[in-house]
Amino acid sequence: MIKIGILGSTGRVGSLLIDDLKDDKEAVLSCVHVLNKLEKILPENTVVTNDINVLFDESDVIIDFSIPVATEELLNAVVEGGKRKALVIATTGLNKHQQNLLLEASKLVPILYATNMSLGVAVLNKLVSLASKTLRDFDIEIVEQHHRHKVDAPSGTALTLAEYASNARDLNLDEVRISGRDGQIGARTKDEISVMALRGGDIVGRHTVGFYNDGEFLELNHTATARNTFSKGAIKVAKWIVRKDAHLYSINDALGL
Amino acid sequence: MIKIGILGSTGRVGSLLIDDLKDDKEAVLSCVHVLNKLEKILPENTVVTNDINVLFDESDVIIDFSIPVATEELLNAVVEGGKRKALVIATTGLNKHQQNLLLEASKLVPILYATNMSLGVAVLNKLVSLASKTLRDFDIEIVEQHHRHKVDAPSGTALTLAEYASNARDLNLDEVRISGRDGQIGARTKDEISVMALRGGDIVGRHTVGFYNDGEFLELNHTATARNTFSKGAIKVAKWIVRKDAHLYSINDALGL
Amino acid sequence: MIKIGILGSTGRVGSLLIDDLKDDKEAVLSCVHVLNKLEKILPENTVVTNDINVLFDESDVIIDFSIPVATEELLNAVVEGGKRKALVIATTGLNKHQQNLLLEASKLVPILYATNMSLGVAVLNKLVSLASKTLRDFDIEIVEQHHRHKVDAPSGTALTLAEYASNARDLNLDEVRISGRDGQIGARTKDEISVMALRGGDIVGRHTVGFYNDGEFLELNHTATARNTFSKGAIKVAKWIVRKDAHLYSINDALGL
Amino acid sequence: MIKIGILGSTGRVGSLLIDDLKDDKEAVLSCVHVLNKLEKILPENTVVTNDINVLFDESDVIIDFSIPVATEELLNAVVEGGKRKALVIATTGLNKHQQNLLLEASKLVPILYATNMSLGVAVLNKLVSLASKTLRDFDIEIVEQHHRHKVDAPSGTALTLAEYASNARDLNLDEVRISGRDGQIGARTKDEISVMALRGGDIVGRHTVGFYNDGEFLELNHTATARNTFSKGAIKVAKWIVRKDAHLYSINDALGL
Repeated sequence: MIKIGILGSTGRVGSLLIDDLKDDKEAVLSCVHVLNKLEKILPENTVVTNDINVLFDESDVIIDFSIPVATEELLNAVVEGGKRKALVIATTGLNKHQQNLLLEASKLVPILYATNMSLGVAVLNKLVSLASKTLRDFDIEIVEQHHRHKVDAPSGTALTLAEYASNARDLNLDEVRISGRDGQIGARTKDEISVMALRGGDIVGRHTVGFYNDGEFLELNHTATARNTFSKGAIKVAKWIVRKDAHLYSINDALGL
Repeated sequence: MIKIGILGSTGRVGSLLIDDLKDDKEAVLSCVHVLNKLEKILPENTVVTNDINVLFDESDVIIDFSIPVATEELLNAVVEGGKRKALVIATTGLNKHQQNLLLEASKLVPILYATNMSLGVAVLNKLVSLASKTLRDFDIEIVEQHHRHKVDAPSGTALTLAEYASNARDLNLDEVRISGRDGQIGARTKDEISVMALRGGDIVGRHTVGFYNDGEFLELNHTATARNTFSKGAIKVAKWIVRKDAHLYSINDALGL
Repeated sequence: MIKIGILGSTGRVGSLLIDDLKDDKEAVLSCVHVLNKLEKILPENTVVTNDINVLFDESDVIIDFSIPVATEELLNAVVEGGKRKALVIATTGLNKHQQNLLLEASKLVPILYATNMSLGVAVLNKLVSLASKTLRDFDIEIVEQHHRHKVDAPSGTALTLAEYASNARDLNLDEVRISGRDGQIGARTKDEISVMALRGGDIVGRHTVGFYNDGEFLELNHTATARNTFSKGAIKVAKWIVRKDAHLYSINDALGL
Repeated sequence: MIKIGILGSTGRVGSLLIDDLKDDKEAVLSCVHVLNKLEKILPENTVVTNDINVLFDESDVIIDFSIPVATEELLNAVVEGGKRKALVIATTGLNKHQQNLLLEASKLVPILYATNMSLGVAVLNKLVSLASKTLRDFDIEIVEQHHRHKVDAPSGTALTLAEYASNARDLNLDEVRISGRDGQIGARTKDEISVMALRGGDIVGRHTVGFYNDGEFLELNHTATARNTFSKGAIKVAKWIVRKDAHLYSINDALGL
């Protein structure tokens, strides 16, 4: 069994990681790093610690869904502390110094860094890029939908999909993206890419990238059905990276894309 | 066999009416009214005329997809000329005088007037109204899609659907309709109804009205697959109205909605 | 605040009822009936009892997601015990005696009985019936999808939708339903209704009823996004029935359908 | 302008080729090979011939949607007659001798051979293969839909998609394919791939390949909106192959897949 340690166990994804590991047949939760208190029933034999060194000692691979300052401590334990364990890092908002530290650490241990751990979205990005490049005459329209509480639009995932689509045609997304249509707007221009945002109910996340031409169209959809998509993805890539050599990997590497 | 005459036979729908009647088992094309020249092979025995009176004499029911001035002549043949045949009228843009003439004529002959002859859209309007009224807590989002050449947005059909949805909740569509979302827009407000327009390829027409709540959603979609949706609908209602009494009917009457 | 009591609180929906009531602004969980032990943290002031009379005394309306024998005790408390509170009953598998008891009790107190408490599904049943009757020329195809663990096909909800569709055309579902197509099957017959079952992942429930004709089609979809669709629906109808007179109501009554 | 000749101009796709070439800006219809009579108005300057040698002399590239015996004559003109022009061949049902002739001719002139000329379907095959291989834990379900007149199920395109999906996982499609679900079927087995066939209305062709896992799913859809998908695809690959060296190409080569 692969021993998985968690940094950031009090966060939402951290909590889901603990749940998802309970039923796993190849991996086991070995250790959680907690600064204050964790309101969660843990499996027996799980080590709870506030010492980053113990987290390393108890784990084969560490999954990190924490905050930049905690990730910095994790990376320092590798670079300065001599710790040698595989890392899966999903922390967003790393500053320049922390990014450099990440690069440095990845020369010593295998690190997978990704801000979106959904395997399906990673694959969709790849498919969109391929379709956009191959079907150059096809008009591209993107629709995303999220729950009624989301405060920004479009979603980061939709913008990333739009970037894959536009980059594949050497277009600048800022110049071709539109976010609404109303009135006497004239015929569609060839290069425009609409990214339309729908809101409503408790939709976790739906993204559809459509390619439309005379006579046919393709629509590529990803739907998140539960909020543990990220924790599931992180566990999967943790199992993959634990056997790798020191290097900075992307989620596409783990998927063989 | 029901004898159908056509006013407006040189237009796009007129041409489709001629095609669709070729295979009909209950109705036959009896007469076409043409001012100049019709570049179309007609079935044998079809009377071609530029005299509105001949059109009446040769037909059991007349389908009119023409222009307001021609429709005016048609209605005058009833009101002043004493002609008594059922009429199916789809001409848009009637002025006040022509609308009054329509009302007057409908006291003498049965007339079905509708600017959208699609049966499916008529049913969808009804379903949307019912769902909107019954599921008041559900957020409403509408998406329409048409081919890349369409110059205005949203489509008239989408706006009509939005009106059915908002009227069922006593909302003023002008106050609640939005046509795009971009940036830090905040959480969705309860009453807003988005009508998003997608463009691309040769899509004839797709309309989806979604109702979203915590735990569940409904999506009601109409898709036009061919441009003869309107001609098919017109022929169907023509067969229905030919046996009716003088009155001004809507497409909902023909469908028993 | 409406005081809601729960019979069947240890079941899956019972647990969701407790969760959903925590955030409700019009209703509060007042009492749970538990025979053995409830492993769940309850709000303060919730009465826990194994006495059906206490459940009645502490509640304005009782929601019952239990088993037939418990429902029988609930109904006897009305018929023989003289208790007078509104009831929402979702227990399946009532025997003949229990069904008669339900009818008798409904002369004394308002009772809403439904085995599917989803509001969206209730509305969809109604829309399907209306569309099927109105669009008689349209071919009907039904697709349902559920998670990979579901052991029977098609779903009860899909069969109910198919019944609404076939009843509206005076068809016998047993004679027209098909559940697969393979090989040289010949052209589609006019009356057949396919009910196709897809399985995969953790899909909570998707049902689409399609109506297809030359030139156009309608697709009416219901998607459950979370397992608390039933508890949400039960709470909503509980708030409605608490003010009603003695009668046996259906979910359509609560929705005004 | 690229001069395109047509073999098989009296067939359905042949007729669409003539229509589609009217508006083309890079290619022009130069010659049609007709044995009997073509009931179709051709552009001025189009050569009509029943001599295969004239077809070669008047064209830069020949598109062939004919029958095996005619394709054999076409290939013989290359192999024995010394003609040297690029060929796009879509004829189905070639026998062993004709297939060998195809190989031989492709050493002398560039030939693109494909029985499905839809660019979108070619891309979808590729995307399905990639997703199937990468997302091995995801359950695969395929749904295809065609008009009510189609007599076999599932469609050839759906079976090809299923083959791409199963080959990517080293599965034997014959062993894992199912075409319906009814009754107490038990939980889904990991490797099964359902290919469900819907029929109705005048649907030209819809194919959806879904990949379902806990927490997320991908659905990849291709929809044909008009019957000229094949002629459009053939014209596009004809423009590509006209500049190539002698070789037997697939549609994937033309698309750079």
